[in-house]
Amino acid sequence: MSVTDEYLENNARYAASFTGPLPLPPAKGVAVVACMDARLNVYGILGLAEGEAHVIRNAGGVVTDDEIRSLAISQRLLGTTEIILIHHTDCGMLTFTDDGFRRSIQEETGIKPTWAAEAFPDLDEDVQQSIARIKASPFIPHTESVRGFVFDVATGKLIEVVS
Amino acid sequence: MSVTDEYLENNARYAASFTGPLPLPPAKGVAVVACMDARLNVYGILGLAEGEAHVIRNAGGVVTDDEIRSLAISQRLLGTTEIILIHHTDCGMLTFTDDGFRRSIQEETGIKPTWAAEAFPDLDEDVQQSIARIKASPFIPHTESVRGFVFDVATGKLIEVVS
Repeated sequence: MSVTDEYLENNARYAASFTGPLPLPPAKGVAVVACMDARLNVYGILGLAEGEAHVIRNAGGVVTDDEIRSLAISQRLLGTTEIILIHHTDCGMLTFTDDGFRRSIQEETGIKPTWAAEAFPDLDEDVQQSIARIKASPFIPHTESVRGFVFDVATGKLIEVVS
Repeated sequence: MSVTDEYLENNARYAASFTGPLPLPPAKGVAVVACMDARLNVYGILGLAEGEAHVIRNAGGVVTDDEIRSLAISQRLLGTTEIILIHHTDCGMLTFTDDGFRRSIQEETGIKPTWAAEAFPDLDEDVQQSIARIKASPFIPHTESVRGFVFDVATGKLIEVVS
């Protein structure tokens, strides 16, 4: 049995105690942008309940055009106004470089990606970079509350990155 | 008090009962790509535990260059081999068009985004589109288990999209 099949069995248990549909717009008006890392259970870390917040995630929790797209839809069409960014300690993105990653793909497949891998050498600096990209975007109307954090995978704590 | 501050209080409670660091590579070898929708608690829906799977999310759960980037890092550097895609009923992406969204931004800000909003008129078709984009990418080595689902926000069930 594949892991996907295991998870489908879990879903049958989840659905058995599921209580009705919630409204589409996030009740708390928040969008979270976090790393895809397996140890970041954003629902546990923030105490998020179903229906409260948009959750956007990718490798690194970085802000590229696709996160600007998602945040623009979140704020313009679904009414969110606060943004929470979460990077974390022991991140895989600290362990390689853009040049090396793209070179290794080119050597194996013959094709070099047109996109950057978005690796970074410093957590706080990259959180600040993500905040700067959001604030510089003409497409994100609400940037009064854009706050960035580093999640410590050893302690479970969020540490705010202050510019 | 902002919602962000409320969530930071929740985090203090989470950290109080947090048990040590887990390994970086996802223990179950799975990457999930899901919509950012507030009602999709991916941990609950799949019964995911901390440390098991990468979770990638954006508006619609669509596959753009940034999801290819994240999946390439997930598979090439961190050993995942299965991919689970999750769209859902009552999705905001069904309620507008790319042309209309980009036009409204242009009218308000004077600038038209260079990216598509990735709105879609049909859930099953867009799940299949996401699977097709993954399978067509030269950068994703493992495409033997790429399965797509629609989450029903009324029942809590995942329904598989069969091509």
